[in-house]
Amino acid sequence: MSVTDELLANAEQYAATFEKGDLPLPPARKIAILACMDARLNPYGLLGLSEGDAHVIRNAGGVVTDDEIRSLSISQRLLGTEEIVLIHHTDCGMLTFTDDEFKRSIQDETGIKPEWAAEAFPDVDEDVRQSLARIKASPFIPRKESVRGFVYEVETGKLREVV
Amino acid sequence: MSVTDELLANAEQYAATFEKGDLPLPPARKIAILACMDARLNPYGLLGLSEGDAHVIRNAGGVVTDDEIRSLSISQRLLGTEEIVLIHHTDCGMLTFTDDEFKRSIQDETGIKPEWAAEAFPDVDEDVRQSLARIKASPFIPRKESVRGFVYEVETGKLREVV
Repeated sequence: MSVTDELLANAEQYAATFEKGDLPLPPARKIAILACMDARLNPYGLLGLSEGDAHVIRNAGGVVTDDEIRSLSISQRLLGTEEIVLIHHTDCGMLTFTDDEFKRSIQDETGIKPEWAAEAFPDVDEDVRQSLARIKASPFIPRKESVRGFVYEVETGKLREVV
Repeated sequence: MSVTDELLANAEQYAATFEKGDLPLPPARKIAILACMDARLNPYGLLGLSEGDAHVIRNAGGVVTDDEIRSLSISQRLLGTEEIVLIHHTDCGMLTFTDDEFKRSIQDETGIKPEWAAEAFPDVDEDVRQSLARIKASPFIPRKESVRGFVYEVETGKLREVV
């Protein structure tokens, strides 16, 4: 039995007791969370989110590329969110390599060098500030009054704001 | 008090009872979930995921662009995941507009036309197949033995596989 099959069995349990079939499309709390994909970072548990509350956008590092600008733009312009929370974290995989190394290893194996940046970073606080700066610089995100960045400490469960 | 401040208060509660400070960086279940950012879709509740289990990647639509190829490539190549689950859903915001309309409205308001695709789609099953096809076509994702796509029904809580 694959892990996918095990998760599908869990999904059947979820549907069996499901009672939230009438939630509206726009997020009730009018907020978008942009966080790293890391397995130890659970935005629902950490922030007390429930179904219907918030858009949750995630990728390797919690970085801001064109695709996050796309998602945040759709979130604010079409679905009414007004606040943004960015979450990076300690012990991140993105701290363990460089773009050059990663892309060289792929080129050596496949013969093709990725045309995209891997977005590795040497300092997590600095990269939160980088992500904040990219959002502030984007002409496509209309609401920037409440854009705040945090580091989640996987060792302690605490969330620390980057200022 | 902003919604962000309310979520930060929840985060203090989370940290107060936190007991998972020794989880390893690589996901225990060796799986990556790629899902839409929609507020009604909670991958933790739906799939029974806990802290440490899985990478969770999300964006508007749950689509596959270069940034998702980047995240999945890092997930598999550096952190050992072997399976991929894609989740789109019914009543998706991406079904309610076209790229041309969305980009025109931004251009009219800001004077700048986004250089990225908005990735809107007219049919959710078709777009799950599109996402599967983009992953299968990528030279940068090494493990493709278990890549499966699903539609989550926000009305019923059920997960339906797209074949």
